[in-house]
Amino acid sequence: MDVVDFVPQRDQFVYTFGGAAPAATIRPGTALRLWSEDAFNNAITSRSDVPSSKLDPRFLNPQTGPFYIEGAAPGDTLAVHIVELTPARSWGASATIPFFGGLTMTDRTSLLHEALPEAVWIYEIDSAAQTVGFQTRRGDFELALPLEPMLGTVGVAPAGSEVFSSLTPERFGGNMDTPEMKVGTTAYFNVNVDGAMFSLGDGHYRQGEGEACGTAVEGAMNSTVIVDLIKGGGPVWPRLENDSHWMIVGSSRPMEDSWRISQVQMIHWLSELFELETMDAYQLLTQISLVPVANVVDTNYSVVTKVSKDLLPQRSAFGGIHADLRERARSLM
Amino acid sequence: MDVVDFVPQRDQFVYTFGGAAPAATIRPGTALRLWSEDAFNNAITSRSDVPSSKLDPRFLNPQTGPFYIEGAAPGDTLAVHIVELTPARSWGASATIPFFGGLTMTDRTSLLHEALPEAVWIYEIDSAAQTVGFQTRRGDFELALPLEPMLGTVGVAPAGSEVFSSLTPERFGGNMDTPEMKVGTTAYFNVNVDGAMFSLGDGHYRQGEGEACGTAVEGAMNSTVIVDLIKGGGPVWPRLENDSHWMIVGSSRPMEDSWRISQVQMIHWLSELFELETMDAYQLLTQISLVPVANVVDTNYSVVTKVSKDLLPQRSAFGGIHADLRERARSLM
Amino acid sequence: MDVVDFVPQRDQFVYTFGGAAPAATIRPGTALRLWSEDAFNNAITSRSDVPSSKLDPRFLNPQTGPFYIEGAAPGDTLAVHIVELTPARSWGASATIPFFGGLTMTDRTSLLHEALPEAVWIYEIDSAAQTVGFQTRRGDFELALPLEPMLGTVGVAPAGSEVFSSLTPERFGGNMDTPEMKVGTTAYFNVNVDGAMFSLGDGHYRQGEGEACGTAVEGAMNSTVIVDLIKGGGPVWPRLENDSHWMIVGSSRPMEDSWRISQVQMIHWLSELFELETMDAYQLLTQISLVPVANVVDTNYSVVTKVSKDLLPQRSAFGGIHADLRERARSLM
Amino acid sequence: MDVVDFVPQRDQFVYTFGGAAPAATIRPGTALRLWSEDAFNNAITSRSDVPSSKLDPRFLNPQTGPFYIEGAAPGDTLAVHIVELTPARSWGASATIPFFGGLTMTDRTSLLHEALPEAVWIYEIDSAAQTVGFQTRRGDFELALPLEPMLGTVGVAPAGSEVFSSLTPERFGGNMDTPEMKVGTTAYFNVNVDGAMFSLGDGHYRQGEGEACGTAVEGAMNSTVIVDLIKGGGPVWPRLENDSHWMIVGSSRPMEDSWRISQVQMIHWLSELFELETMDAYQLLTQISLVPVANVVDTNYSVVTKVSKDLLPQRSAFGGIHADLRERARSLM
Repeated sequence: MDVVDFVPQRDQFVYTFGGAAPAATIRPGTALRLWSEDAFNNAITSRSDVPSSKLDPRFLNPQTGPFYIEGAAPGDTLAVHIVELTPARSWGASATIPFFGGLTMTDRTSLLHEALPEAVWIYEIDSAAQTVGFQTRRGDFELALPLEPMLGTVGVAPAGSEVFSSLTPERFGGNMDTPEMKVGTTAYFNVNVDGAMFSLGDGHYRQGEGEACGTAVEGAMNSTVIVDLIKGGGPVWPRLENDSHWMIVGSSRPMEDSWRISQVQMIHWLSELFELETMDAYQLLTQISLVPVANVVDTNYSVVTKVSKDLLPQRSAFGGIHADLRERARSLM
Repeated sequence: MDVVDFVPQRDQFVYTFGGAAPAATIRPGTALRLWSEDAFNNAITSRSDVPSSKLDPRFLNPQTGPFYIEGAAPGDTLAVHIVELTPARSWGASATIPFFGGLTMTDRTSLLHEALPEAVWIYEIDSAAQTVGFQTRRGDFELALPLEPMLGTVGVAPAGSEVFSSLTPERFGGNMDTPEMKVGTTAYFNVNVDGAMFSLGDGHYRQGEGEACGTAVEGAMNSTVIVDLIKGGGPVWPRLENDSHWMIVGSSRPMEDSWRISQVQMIHWLSELFELETMDAYQLLTQISLVPVANVVDTNYSVVTKVSKDLLPQRSAFGGIHADLRERARSLM
Repeated sequence: MDVVDFVPQRDQFVYTFGGAAPAATIRPGTALRLWSEDAFNNAITSRSDVPSSKLDPRFLNPQTGPFYIEGAAPGDTLAVHIVELTPARSWGASATIPFFGGLTMTDRTSLLHEALPEAVWIYEIDSAAQTVGFQTRRGDFELALPLEPMLGTVGVAPAGSEVFSSLTPERFGGNMDTPEMKVGTTAYFNVNVDGAMFSLGDGHYRQGEGEACGTAVEGAMNSTVIVDLIKGGGPVWPRLENDSHWMIVGSSRPMEDSWRISQVQMIHWLSELFELETMDAYQLLTQISLVPVANVVDTNYSVVTKVSKDLLPQRSAFGGIHADLRERARSLM
Repeated sequence: MDVVDFVPQRDQFVYTFGGAAPAATIRPGTALRLWSEDAFNNAITSRSDVPSSKLDPRFLNPQTGPFYIEGAAPGDTLAVHIVELTPARSWGASATIPFFGGLTMTDRTSLLHEALPEAVWIYEIDSAAQTVGFQTRRGDFELALPLEPMLGTVGVAPAGSEVFSSLTPERFGGNMDTPEMKVGTTAYFNVNVDGAMFSLGDGHYRQGEGEACGTAVEGAMNSTVIVDLIKGGGPVWPRLENDSHWMIVGSSRPMEDSWRISQVQMIHWLSELFELETMDAYQLLTQISLVPVANVVDTNYSVVTKVSKDLLPQRSAFGGIHADLRERARSLM
């Protein structure tokens, strides 16, 4: 297996999906060992930092990449398997930022209130216990929460020459902010442009569903992923698979539209896998669907539809590539 | 413990929250053994039934109750603990109904399409295996799914003399359609009127999150619940508790508003339980929240915010009544 | 023409659609001369009033009625023609109320902000100039705005034994808060229950589209309306007609659903009036529709679809009753 | 006054806001005489055309431009005054397109229906009568509707290196599809990048509010506009001004967010113009706002908040440039 290591220099950070020159060209099946900066671009390092004065809106959510995958053409499927996610710092940070987040007025849900207080929380990692430490700003409440690393942002370049901020979740993936994007998951994206132009970033040491305040436990991350290519079969919206579940991520507004997207796409997927007529698949999904919300804070809201493989006969999606990637991943660990 | 058995006659079914005379008056702490008809009012019994010609919109989702709880006054908390849920028939039914459901145009998401095909699926219960059998209408795909009984509809009378169809989820509970309303759960409702006027119905033998097509595996149910009263402390929106989680159910439209409600209420609850300042609780919830969607098909959409007790120091909500009800429930099983 | 005068006593005010005994029974074609209290129930009378301490949530938006119309049966059409609206006081009031309004967090768009400042504005009527006087609270900016009386709330009892607060706009009409509900307008409602149970209230001396802060220039009103009955033909959603326009009011959430409702219903109406196929009516409406927003503050948001009669061949809706009511109205002025 | 004529060649059409090289550089104050192709890229020319087979999604809504305005820097205000709009063809076209439009399921409001029928309507212009002719596809209903030319799409490059399809309405303007973008209107945009990069397109010979089916009477257009620059003062969202009204266009989803944006921005504008405190401006707007919906079909929905100058003391916005541009425009007519 080809293995490529890449630690971007600060001036190599990329802040968009689309519009960026490739960091490197790789062959399908390559393992990437990538370092990514945190979503704050390392501007938040202490609980005394004031987010609005530290954060530069032009330089948020830096991505590592993009990678040009040889042979990837529009309509193909890019498979990205997450082998390993390791915090690259001993602490993570979260913050409330004026007019950003799910429980504040924003530039869209535009109201007449003053901004909520801005503040920073620092989470120290306890490597032995595999926890991150929450500490209140007022009072002395402390809590050790399980370290559960995930990637907030994974995606490919969009179609139609569009270029989106890396803060956006869309059909091309991007800033979906779902805790399902963790070790053991294979993500499938439709290829929109030659080379696919894959990138990742926005490491989270842990995140609740919805990402209410807008920021998870953000941290620099060392990620090992295998990137492979399937000719054709590109899914309309991102699909995820791990050993136990099939998933779709829909991203739009209002949130019911995100849900509708993920449900309709899952109905199509079940129809393919089990040769079901659409209304039968609709009925079946109604009784077995799990729906963990991903984010209600980004430029689109993301909702996951999730189905347990245990409830269903065994099937292989995308030619069984997930099982194969799991196998190949072992050699990297 | 007082134990009251009640099997309503057909003419005793109630189709609203509010506006109905009590079926009986009970003392706080009473155990109710209740039979409830299915949401179709038993009009769907075969896969050859045509829902739109069988269903009478005036008589959908019949409730069993309401019960007048002695001493319950506005602002009090009604605690309802689900002890046992047993299917009262050997089969359940689900159906697609014209212009009803999450992936069809409706009377609200009003479009110019024709109705989707209407159809019925019958699920036979296998008591030994504790499963319900899914069978496609086209083709011969069959699947045994775990029997996971729950109540779609549990609630009290609304405030302000309003009367809502039993198809509505709201502050008073009602048709929330969350799979969390299962054995072992205690639900807390604010009392809005003297006597609280508690009722339940809409048994589901199983349901996926979102209840996409609009109907779960609907079935008549035998429910055992203990109904108790806490003076004061009525929650603004329904709270749920089981041995492992605290939960809030928000119901509104669009779906992000349902989510916002459930998140803000959970922040307030965490603040109370752990004496946290609001912004600290907001931060904490951001990293630990679970958000399983309940329904995206009813007159309001329902979203659950859920927090694992395991992640937090031990606390007792509502004076520890949940643990107490668990204890009392044992004598009934 | 029968003419009935009715000034309700304070204990005769009604706060719901549905659930109330009739104030009187009238024959179709009766003219009603009604006095209605303002939406604040006269609790706000000075700019030094503090809304949250003056207003009683149980007694907001008092309605005058309901009237039982002889012979009105479910499925019939109730036609209500507004003959005259005259302020019953020399001043009106508007207020910002905590957590109510379109540009504040609410109990639904639930966020973590503090309430916006609450305040009262008093508008003196200048009868000669036919204006209401706006005056800032801070500074000395004054403005005479045209007096343009309208009714915020007009409707009938809902179907299915439901009872809604008079603050709700729905299929049955209610608190639609559209400035189109003014002198010269005929409103058509589907009759849901025997007698229709018509009521009105919520006089506005003027209101902008959207009613942003949640309250118009609220004032007691003397209304003269003719109430007539057409057997059958009840519209799914309220229709309005004046000499120049046909209109539909849709009320739901999110706002695009209110718009969709009003557009689809107008397409059906145009199809009926001009014998158009649905897609042709869709095309035509696309090029001629006006869409003035009504309210974005109530329990449902209301959007009006409006079509100019001038653009279209002459047609009579509902058997030409609007022209007839205009004629009959002359004898009352 | 500098006058620049520009008729793009087919290979000069631009399909994005952002990401395109300038067609020309102009000085502030230049009058542009521009020809723009219709939104279908001239692929629809007959009522027998089948949209889904004629339209190429990569080449929809071609823009004319962009123009680099000398001296325009981020934070400045670009003022675009529409002097003249003349249809460049003798006919316009409208169409229903599968899964596009306001009353059909879409890729976002994703449901399980089949597509609505696709069809084309051709509107012949009667130059003498200044009308466009509507003709049903089924039956022989015909109607002459007033020719009311407007531009669906006017805007500048977005900030942050983003590149959006010309089908998108956003802060930078773009595909707002409001009938207010007509002769006599001055539009104000914040400059996001050096040179502003102004472009326009999407001529409509007429359009109803909401643009229900997704396409107006689309046609090639000859536009005369004066483009001027004000240093600083760039508005957060597009502002419009004509002789009678001030307006803001908000574009987002759900539609209440578009409305909230336009209302809050108008409150800020009124506060500036009349030195009002925010709550006073909120109150005032509540009583005088007009809210004509623009589009409910594009990637964002657009809502206009509109205030009549007649109701208010005379004020000059942006240094009175609108009156000045009206004056300058005369020399071009």
